[in-house]
Amino acid sequence: MAIQDLFRSDLKVVNIGLSSFNQALNDSRTPSVHVAWRPPLSGDREAWAVIEKNKTRIDEANERAMRIILSGRPVLTGMGRAKEVIPGMRDDLFLHAGPPITWQRMCGPMRGAVMGALIYERRAKTPEEAVKLAASGKIAFSPCHEYGAVGPMAGIISPSMPVFIIDNEETETQAYTTMNEGLGKVLRYGAYGEDVVERLRWLENSLFPVLQRAMAKVGRIDLKNIIAQALHMGDEVHNRNRAATSLFYRALAPAIVRTSEDAETAARVLEFINGNDHFFLNLSMAACKATLDAARNIPGSSIAIAMARNGTDFGVQLSGTGRTWFTGPADVPDALYFPGFSKADANPDIGDSAITETGGLGGFALAASPAIVQFVGGNAEEALTYTKRMYDITAAEHTAYQIPQLNFRGTPIGIDVRKVMATGILPFIDTGVAHKDPGVGQIGAGVLTAPAEPFIKAFEGFVASLKGGQVSLDLNRVKSAKVKS
Amino acid sequence: MAIQDLFRSDLKVVNIGLSSFNQALNDSRTPSVHVAWRPPLSGDREAWAVIEKNKTRIDEANERAMRIILSGRPVLTGMGRAKEVIPGMRDDLFLHAGPPITWQRMCGPMRGAVMGALIYERRAKTPEEAVKLAASGKIAFSPCHEYGAVGPMAGIISPSMPVFIIDNEETETQAYTTMNEGLGKVLRYGAYGEDVVERLRWLENSLFPVLQRAMAKVGRIDLKNIIAQALHMGDEVHNRNRAATSLFYRALAPAIVRTSEDAETAARVLEFINGNDHFFLNLSMAACKATLDAARNIPGSSIAIAMARNGTDFGVQLSGTGRTWFTGPADVPDALYFPGFSKADANPDIGDSAITETGGLGGFALAASPAIVQFVGGNAEEALTYTKRMYDITAAEHTAYQIPQLNFRGTPIGIDVRKVMATGILPFIDTGVAHKDPGVGQIGAGVLTAPAEPFIKAFEGFVASLKGGQVSLDLNRVKSAKVKS
Repeated sequence: MAIQDLFRSDLKVVNIGLSSFNQALNDSRTPSVHVAWRPPLSGDREAWAVIEKNKTRIDEANERAMRIILSGRPVLTGMGRAKEVIPGMRDDLFLHAGPPITWQRMCGPMRGAVMGALIYERRAKTPEEAVKLAASGKIAFSPCHEYGAVGPMAGIISPSMPVFIIDNEETETQAYTTMNEGLGKVLRYGAYGEDVVERLRWLENSLFPVLQRAMAKVGRIDLKNIIAQALHMGDEVHNRNRAATSLFYRALAPAIVRTSEDAETAARVLEFINGNDHFFLNLSMAACKATLDAARNIPGSSIAIAMARNGTDFGVQLSGTGRTWFTGPADVPDALYFPGFSKADANPDIGDSAITETGGLGGFALAASPAIVQFVGGNAEEALTYTKRMYDITAAEHTAYQIPQLNFRGTPIGIDVRKVMATGILPFIDTGVAHKDPGVGQIGAGVLTAPAEPFIKAFEGFVASLKGGQVSLDLNRVKSAKVKS
Repeated sequence: MAIQDLFRSDLKVVNIGLSSFNQALNDSRTPSVHVAWRPPLSGDREAWAVIEKNKTRIDEANERAMRIILSGRPVLTGMGRAKEVIPGMRDDLFLHAGPPITWQRMCGPMRGAVMGALIYERRAKTPEEAVKLAASGKIAFSPCHEYGAVGPMAGIISPSMPVFIIDNEETETQAYTTMNEGLGKVLRYGAYGEDVVERLRWLENSLFPVLQRAMAKVGRIDLKNIIAQALHMGDEVHNRNRAATSLFYRALAPAIVRTSEDAETAARVLEFINGNDHFFLNLSMAACKATLDAARNIPGSSIAIAMARNGTDFGVQLSGTGRTWFTGPADVPDALYFPGFSKADANPDIGDSAITETGGLGGFALAASPAIVQFVGGNAEEALTYTKRMYDITAAEHTAYQIPQLNFRGTPIGIDVRKVMATGILPFIDTGVAHKDPGVGQIGAGVLTAPAEPFIKAFEGFVASLKGGQVSLDLNRVKSAKVKS
């Protein structure tokens, strides 16, 4: 440091207590850090006594869970059609993001996506026909998560859709996810117009065969390696995937060229991926899913295995509580809205993409992605504090995913519901924002803090499981065909 | 910030004065910052009186120079063979990195590269024949810089070599540079074996025609845009070019596929670029060259337009002192050496790549590239201090090139020799390290501080120019055919 720098340094203030005091500093543009002390979410003495009594058992269970999670090796190994590769998938089953939900309770963008998918599947000719069919009871709906799958935003996976197959080479768990459609009016944000369906058909008939052949040629693409590198290149691999998409594109392009029928076909596929910096998002999500699913069903473990939103409810699953979803209302995100839209137009938080935060990425790795800090007020240093806060509710630091800006500290991973309850700190999640009405699409992107209710319920459910309660079996709505562990 | 973080913070020490005091802190692993106060490089009262008297004129000249530099718009527009597109290039002329030098004074790796280029040009059959021809006086040597070109390390551009053509769309200056050969035993590090020459032929006969056709199809690739993005993705675009190479590859791949004779040719070209994360380095250098050359020859300007090393001398050119090179001995870099090598094996600093630092990138943007901070001791926070120090010797902050880690502050750009003299702070340069013997190649990569002598001479030359001295014309050795401004 030059001596000049030392004397040019400005006053910096640390504010502890009421955030309103901090506002005065903000108004005068004095840099300050607000210390977010808050009371614990649960003061239930009996519950904490049960936790305390079982401390060794919980710690050991969590250690086992974290060993499995940190050693995960998610690898893209191929592609296939959903109904042919996802075990249990069938013609009348549509998968969706988040915890279980009926058509009647589905939000606008999820309904829009179901309508578009029914038209895409040629089960309906018009949006009106699609609504009628969806409400008829002839279509079964189930969370992607229950079938080893994940989908961004509405997350609809219908039987004909092509999916990537991700293998966790350490544990033999598998995960599935669709190809990212790009931006603009797209199914996952609830749009269902002709252009949306036409693009889905192009994905199926043009992109899918090319990528499938290219993947058959390369055999495997190591997603853990790409994610680790992308964190060194400004991605948090949820709301920013520019580097990861670039590295994926570099790895696959030569095989795409060699296996395509002709040069024009190959060039169009490359242009499509090049035109969509979020192409890697679905793979990032599935990499986390394949990794986390391996640590399910460890009795006594208080580690979150999934966080997911269906646009109505926010759901959490813990390792130690089986397939139970602990849910509460999803919140509307703070966001940067596209011109002409505001928070009043926004649907509550939606999508399986919070699996990235569950896996130590996204909002948990925000410090690695200064280029998207406009989502949290535009200050790069302040963005570090979001990631730092997550260390207080997680069980470990990732051994492969690092944050250069925190001197290569591993990302916070393994949300421990005990710590969420004790600190009152809730997970911080990056997200896209869908219009609340079906048919419109994306209207912004931003961040939000997970709602407290699902975690309070998860804590209660976890305490019940320690006492031998059958909570997990009682609430298990759909049997997963995929989770092997 | 969570309250826990506040109380977990460790002691940090600021050391002002002797760096030996700081060593004790380092030994005890206590984090500390050493404040590098030092006396000015020049205490010549008469010289400073001339500077002071001409202050307004110098400031205005520098403002003009910085307007030209900051508004530069370097764009890749095509390719051609050196002797066909570089004005003044001819069959008996070999261009090299750094300031002018004779064969007799050339260092080992530059000699090795000349030998390899003579064999590549079929002017010699053996290394021995090449040495004889090089020493015979039948081959003319000139700095790349004098012909609007730049080359990394030895920087040899021989007449048949294909080069990229970079246009500064704001000013009509042009720059030229070779295609990066990749790592390992390569010409630019002084290797000249059969494999080196064979790869050069592959570059000429396979890579060049493919890239030339692809560039003809896309028309232009905006290098300023790629560099600005790469700084948000962990590159400083000198010692790390992974993101910039990825973005360049993404931009060009579809055109490569469409214009190649067959799929296998296209795939091999993509694989070559994918296998060389430094492919963008030469383009980054030429982008800076095309930008800086536009601000040459502004009387009264104390801004550095070029810093370059030939492996023997380190040379500086200022805007206000014409084509004069102010030189002094090049230093051996501190570096991370490959296994089996040490500083004793290293050649002094070599290459035109310090044009990136002159253009506000490389060492000046090190803070943007935490992934390469192992070159400066491995501490990401400390790496910020190197960039911060450069603000004290530069005239401006870049309006397009930003450092996310410094809250998107523009990179320091426009080295003002007055400030270098007044502060005693010398430019900080990233670099590769060549073995001192011809034929060996790269043995490491690292960083170094520019030597003082060229800057002291440049300051004296600048003062002389203010007094109407003819210093610049006297020392001008080779007439540049390219600089248009």
